[in-house]
Amino acid sequence: MSSKQIVIHAPATVANMVCGFDVLGFAVNEPYDIMKIRFSDSPGVTIINEDIYNLPIDPAKNVAGAALLAMLEEIPEVAGLELTINKQIKPGSGVGSSAASAAGAVVAANCLLEDRFRKEDLVRFAMNGEKLASGVKHADNIAPCIYGGVTLIRSIFPLDIIELNAPPLFVTIVHPQIEVRTADARSILKQQIQLKDAIKQWGNIAGLVAGLQKSDYDLIGRSLEDVLIEPIRSILIPGFDEVKQKSKEVGALGGGISGSGPSIFMLSKDEQTARKVETEMKAIFSGIGLEHHTYITTINQQGIKIIEA
Amino acid sequence: MSSKQIVIHAPATVANMVCGFDVLGFAVNEPYDIMKIRFSDSPGVTIINEDIYNLPIDPAKNVAGAALLAMLEEIPEVAGLELTINKQIKPGSGVGSSAASAAGAVVAANCLLEDRFRKEDLVRFAMNGEKLASGVKHADNIAPCIYGGVTLIRSIFPLDIIELNAPPLFVTIVHPQIEVRTADARSILKQQIQLKDAIKQWGNIAGLVAGLQKSDYDLIGRSLEDVLIEPIRSILIPGFDEVKQKSKEVGALGGGISGSGPSIFMLSKDEQTARKVETEMKAIFSGIGLEHHTYITTINQQGIKIIEA
Repeated sequence: MSSKQIVIHAPATVANMVCGFDVLGFAVNEPYDIMKIRFSDSPGVTIINEDIYNLPIDPAKNVAGAALLAMLEEIPEVAGLELTINKQIKPGSGVGSSAASAAGAVVAANCLLEDRFRKEDLVRFAMNGEKLASGVKHADNIAPCIYGGVTLIRSIFPLDIIELNAPPLFVTIVHPQIEVRTADARSILKQQIQLKDAIKQWGNIAGLVAGLQKSDYDLIGRSLEDVLIEPIRSILIPGFDEVKQKSKEVGALGGGISGSGPSIFMLSKDEQTARKVETEMKAIFSGIGLEHHTYITTINQQGIKIIEA
Repeated sequence: MSSKQIVIHAPATVANMVCGFDVLGFAVNEPYDIMKIRFSDSPGVTIINEDIYNLPIDPAKNVAGAALLAMLEEIPEVAGLELTINKQIKPGSGVGSSAASAAGAVVAANCLLEDRFRKEDLVRFAMNGEKLASGVKHADNIAPCIYGGVTLIRSIFPLDIIELNAPPLFVTIVHPQIEVRTADARSILKQQIQLKDAIKQWGNIAGLVAGLQKSDYDLIGRSLEDVLIEPIRSILIPGFDEVKQKSKEVGALGGGISGSGPSIFMLSKDEQTARKVETEMKAIFSGIGLEHHTYITTINQQGIKIIEA
């Protein structure tokens, strides 16, 4: 048995990207989880937590474990894997914490296995973690975590992932310390929508993709509009409307709910604006007495990084 | 009064482009209408028809007339305009015949007025023609007719038109000689749709825009899928499913209903494939005994052409 150990960084991700519900997402450079994997004599998946979150170590109840178990089914010659997780992305914050665990685990394992699987396979395995976390196999965090940059899930069955270009963008994220469960945020959505609203939404996603491909910042900003999901989900996030308004007033291109919340992200063309946005976010949540944490980061073009192989 | 005369060619256009209902459209090089305009001492708009279609010459009842009347409201110093129309695009065929008339008239008039108006203004005037033709101010034929290429109407109020790149594409169009009124094709649509279907649709439009921008023919083909409008509207077009299936079998990237039909368009990467598609189309409509007309053309990158100024 090889004693090789792989260490990776799995980045946080922002799903939906305002007008791309369930299909768009992007990776950021901060925060990220640190994970180590090695072959083990113990059969199945052994999980060791090195962080403060006390997540389940039963692999069937752990998102990273669920992803690795799906992978192990296709590599019967591997007896066991030992995964050590040092989670930096707070679970439930809405920036792809579960995706980082699930995607990080299978990317690390694939490195251990000398790249036996294609990226599409890794997405497929990792989606088992998302199923465990939210009840639905979705890839809008998994795909950008693995591929980096901005990704489009054109179709989930069959899986069709498209890597989009993106100009340099600064991302300000605020995580107000309230709990929004993904399953709850999903259940409040209307399953029937107006055709006229859907037309607005696909006009915007088309505009956003064109803006990203053309590096047209104004078009990106104009297209960051969501007439369907945000009006419903933002009710769960105190301060949301004010954060959005003030961020735009100080120059942000636009933004919205990260994934199903409660984190809010804003895109800016330069770092100075991203800092002004952070100042506004802090003032708003301090004003309403809500604990919060902020990040200023950039789009992560690489996805999961192999730190030690 | 100037005796100057402007002659233009106003191209046919394909609206919706399968997954971009109400927001996407492109212009083609064939067929096109020929229009002449000059200043006139007769107040208002004088229309002269030089074709076989017997369209109304009362400007308030003529789509080109309605567009020019809207324009005249903003140029009180111009007494009258005389427009001669030689229509080559059969009305009601679903390839933007009314848009060519309305857009052609205002572009020609703007040339006469030495480019007083911006393209956005011309779209705004021409939409009055579409309102007359279909009851709705839409720009998905008008915009590509004026701008050329593939256009996205990200928003109609306020008007936001985005010019998309497109790789070289061959377009095969078949017009089966049945009548599908735009207003009817619109009224049969469901105003309420499933969120899950809308997600598929915006995944596809995002894929199509990315494919066009990246010149990725396979992605363009995979994204030419419409789960919302086509299943309903295609019922009005005999032979539709077979045309689509056979066209793909001989190599077409994909395609669907042009605008609200009855014309069907198919995109191909090369002329040879476009010709095979035409052969299939002719065989299918001959087989069901339906008169039809076909075109093999390419995307028109220029829009309305000024032939004589």
